[in-house]
Amino acid sequence: MADKFMSMRNLKFTLHEVVGTESLPPGSPVNGHSRKSMDMVLDAAFDFAKKALHPIFEEMDRNPPELINGTVAVHKDVRSILATLGKDGWISAIFPEEWGGDNMPPSLLHAVCFVFASANYSASVYSGLTTGAANLIFTFGSEDLHKQFLLPMLEGRWQGTMALTEPEAGTSLGDLTTAATPQADGTYRIKGEKIFISAGDHDGVDNVVHLMLARIDGAPAGVKGISLFAVPKLRKNGKDELVSNDVTVTQVFHKMGYRGAPITALSLGDKDDCTGHLVGEPNRGLSYMFQMMNGARLEVGIGATAIATAAYHASLDYAKNRRQGRRLTDGPGGAPIPIIEHQDVKRMLLFQRAVSEGALSLILQCSRYEDRMHSAPDEEQADCKLLLELLTPVAKTFPAEMGILSTSASIQCFGGYGYCEDFPVEQHFRDMRIHAIHEGTTGIQGMDLLGRKVVMNNGKALQLLDREMESTMEKAKGHPELRAMTKALAEARDTLAATTMTLGNVAMEKGPEAFLANATLYLELFGLVTVAWQWLAQMAVASEKLAAQTIRKSDRAFYEGKLAVGRYYFSHELPKIGPLSVTLAQPPLSLQTEVDCFTD
Amino acid sequence: MADKFMSMRNLKFTLHEVVGTESLPPGSPVNGHSRKSMDMVLDAAFDFAKKALHPIFEEMDRNPPELINGTVAVHKDVRSILATLGKDGWISAIFPEEWGGDNMPPSLLHAVCFVFASANYSASVYSGLTTGAANLIFTFGSEDLHKQFLLPMLEGRWQGTMALTEPEAGTSLGDLTTAATPQADGTYRIKGEKIFISAGDHDGVDNVVHLMLARIDGAPAGVKGISLFAVPKLRKNGKDELVSNDVTVTQVFHKMGYRGAPITALSLGDKDDCTGHLVGEPNRGLSYMFQMMNGARLEVGIGATAIATAAYHASLDYAKNRRQGRRLTDGPGGAPIPIIEHQDVKRMLLFQRAVSEGALSLILQCSRYEDRMHSAPDEEQADCKLLLELLTPVAKTFPAEMGILSTSASIQCFGGYGYCEDFPVEQHFRDMRIHAIHEGTTGIQGMDLLGRKVVMNNGKALQLLDREMESTMEKAKGHPELRAMTKALAEARDTLAATTMTLGNVAMEKGPEAFLANATLYLELFGLVTVAWQWLAQMAVASEKLAAQTIRKSDRAFYEGKLAVGRYYFSHELPKIGPLSVTLAQPPLSLQTEVDCFTD
Repeated sequence: MADKFMSMRNLKFTLHEVVGTESLPPGSPVNGHSRKSMDMVLDAAFDFAKKALHPIFEEMDRNPPELINGTVAVHKDVRSILATLGKDGWISAIFPEEWGGDNMPPSLLHAVCFVFASANYSASVYSGLTTGAANLIFTFGSEDLHKQFLLPMLEGRWQGTMALTEPEAGTSLGDLTTAATPQADGTYRIKGEKIFISAGDHDGVDNVVHLMLARIDGAPAGVKGISLFAVPKLRKNGKDELVSNDVTVTQVFHKMGYRGAPITALSLGDKDDCTGHLVGEPNRGLSYMFQMMNGARLEVGIGATAIATAAYHASLDYAKNRRQGRRLTDGPGGAPIPIIEHQDVKRMLLFQRAVSEGALSLILQCSRYEDRMHSAPDEEQADCKLLLELLTPVAKTFPAEMGILSTSASIQCFGGYGYCEDFPVEQHFRDMRIHAIHEGTTGIQGMDLLGRKVVMNNGKALQLLDREMESTMEKAKGHPELRAMTKALAEARDTLAATTMTLGNVAMEKGPEAFLANATLYLELFGLVTVAWQWLAQMAVASEKLAAQTIRKSDRAFYEGKLAVGRYYFSHELPKIGPLSVTLAQPPLSLQTEVDCFTD
Repeated sequence: MADKFMSMRNLKFTLHEVVGTESLPPGSPVNGHSRKSMDMVLDAAFDFAKKALHPIFEEMDRNPPELINGTVAVHKDVRSILATLGKDGWISAIFPEEWGGDNMPPSLLHAVCFVFASANYSASVYSGLTTGAANLIFTFGSEDLHKQFLLPMLEGRWQGTMALTEPEAGTSLGDLTTAATPQADGTYRIKGEKIFISAGDHDGVDNVVHLMLARIDGAPAGVKGISLFAVPKLRKNGKDELVSNDVTVTQVFHKMGYRGAPITALSLGDKDDCTGHLVGEPNRGLSYMFQMMNGARLEVGIGATAIATAAYHASLDYAKNRRQGRRLTDGPGGAPIPIIEHQDVKRMLLFQRAVSEGALSLILQCSRYEDRMHSAPDEEQADCKLLLELLTPVAKTFPAEMGILSTSASIQCFGGYGYCEDFPVEQHFRDMRIHAIHEGTTGIQGMDLLGRKVVMNNGKALQLLDREMESTMEKAKGHPELRAMTKALAEARDTLAATTMTLGNVAMEKGPEAFLANATLYLELFGLVTVAWQWLAQMAVASEKLAAQTIRKSDRAFYEGKLAVGRYYFSHELPKIGPLSVTLAQPPLSLQTEVDCFTD
């Protein structure tokens, strides 16, 4: 197996030089983190990822979780990994010091997530879920709930989950039926079924705390009657012992990939003895959950980007070392050349970098807005929040969908070997495919972007994005070699604006069905444009650095590589917005096609 | 599991109404087959596929081949399937009557392959490989070889294979080193290693015959020194008993998909006791093999199309029956609707049909040229051969590459369930991914198309294709509703011609590296244009039929469905040639990118 699963150089380049730290006033820390302390954190994360996560990347896939006597057995290392992540403060990192954290800024947290996920995506999700669930309790739960749950979760002894989906309510959460009946002691009796619960049970922890959506008896129908509960697998009895809370694992799903993490179905209250604790106020569960979900969606984007990155490095390693064939201009006599010298292989490597490094940049740009939501001057905070909300579905979906093609290209670089278990890329391809589904399918992200984010605050977010792109183009202007790309981004931005305007008219004239029918394609176009923006930002930095008087040879190669991949993106990928914008300007074909036509 | 894996109605529509039988002079049979007899054959194939192949589609995947004591154990039904396919004349179908066949025309053979492969791709390849190998022996081998090998192969008792690839010679066949040393009795002693040999050994047959490329001692270097041999696993001794021929299975590859068929590594002549029989003349092996390989490439296209088709039908079934969510204009009160009524789901179904039905049409169009290569007037035969050769890499690659996205869309229609083993689509997605690799990767197909097929006979094949497209546009002209599509195809054809011209100039001015650097993208463009041509052909038939005085309700829905999918293709897929042609007109970026830039 290839050893290298990510480029720390590229991660730090993106974090500091492109979206981040370097552009801050000199010496100004991010939530108390200096560039140097951030680098130390990243290096430590990498060290852990390399030693503890990456070595079991394949093992976890080959030995997926199994349901044995009511408990889900997972890889034996999960327990020690979670214990270490708890002990060393990774799970609690974003929390304040009183909970063992150090207010880690989102950009650094996401960079760390990326490191872990590129080493072993499945292994990385356990602790991320716990952090997210604990954060929900911390933000919306009472002090009593803090006391009951936070410490063992942050120490990695208890697993946290998000329990939303039900057999008849996946994408349509308003239909969920899990019931919560108030009890005299202020708790609730929970009854229902949940499916597709990530890390919903496993033997790497002593307990599991489900952050669960349910409907209090008599609540309004639809999404307005959904409340949030903390429902532990085991609860404390009078003697402070952990006893069953009537949460039963009914199934572990057998998945195509992402097999190191157990996805479970749960039955709650089979014996009418499942206790849940209301988090926050009744009927506000969905809005609470969405705070976690937006973070989770960005983390899905990070996961997809990390997998694409690891697959790229595996194929790069192979392409540099595998010798086969000759240049077209050579006869059969000479020695075979490394396959990276074949143009088609080099093209596939450029494509993979364009996707994975472009997506990483977009994600860390989002993280940067999240940083500034908490630390920028007040008036700027609201803008950053809008930008983050606008870009979240894009930063989730671009890597999730393009990652399918990117990991496919990784396989293709290996030829037949890529299809076999001897190399990691077939697993990356399988692991990738979940990301367009979990935490909201691509279809849902498209409707979220076009139907909610673009129109919120009278389109303010899109205006802010425009300003951001403008500022990047301003930076690029000084470099003649970026002129064509700057012009292309300006045109792309206009295309996006025109398409948005057209669809706005459709909304007014023809209503929401026609407006949102091709929202997925709009999201695709949006992704292509925003990643172009991020590539121009990367190229502007590279040009700037290359213009320096002295530059190390390895730095020169790195920055020239950035320019090469950027040119590739602008030449091969961005132009795809052309046909998309034409299609989006036409009346949606799906609306004109009768269901009856799908007869045969 | 969804029961329906293909539409016989669509297959017969394509075979008879679009590319085929209906356009022949009334009553004229194809190689002795009338439309009615062809339909009987297809119905019989479907019956067998449904009863024998489809029920073990999942079982074969879940219990992949294992190497046990030197023999590869496969699913227990493989033996009875092959025996039936032998007994009932499917393996010998294309052979003349003396060998139990009935000169089945290629179009019908390919339609049958499609039926089998859509039921269970892995199960379908065993007999197809035997037919191909037997055909090589039949075409180029001596009478003695016919006697030794053909009967047990055609009866399904012996497996046939193509043994080309070696550890250090995959795509670059010229580098293969398997040695053949002449013996006094006219046979050869074989020594070497082969990898990735499909059905290279299994316990569903009594013997295996490898059609193997090797190099006779002293042969010229490169592809000009390659000869073709028949190398059996077991050979007859003096007493007419089968004894070891020193062919050892060293490995069964563990693959991501396509797991029902064993792909093996072989070692030949470990004990210097492996006998091979020269097929045809020395040093002409590659040209012989290419006859088989072209057929095999078309069959890969059929396999990919069949898998996309089966996945489409599974997702269609689910989309019609799964109820979730509501129309955007409905409140939360009403009953959930079948998800096919959500625009994004319908769009994904249209996409899947556009790919699978478009690819099927292109493949059967190729088959039709192959029919006529053997039955048309002499002067036309050469044209048909050129068209078949030109379109083979396209008919292989369009479904292989687009099928990745198409089966991905099938998964997406299911949401989370699609990622789980409970439904067949995750397997289809895995099974699909081999097709861009085996029988020549997409990169190889691109170079074959642009570097060989387009330029052969001074570009004659492309001129012939132009004429064919012209004739389809002529037919479409009579239907006003097809005017826009006809115009779009004419423009697309011009784009293809202009791009070809541009690349021709690159070849002359800059040499082969620059000419072929983006051959894969040229192939993609070529595929989009030729499938548009096939969609216009299908739409022209549909319009014609819909214009009839009386038409059954089910027919109306079928033909209107064709028009809807055709419109989808022209509106959503064909426009993608725009950016491709722009990219292809620029100097290839891979050539401008130093390998050194891939440092980190």
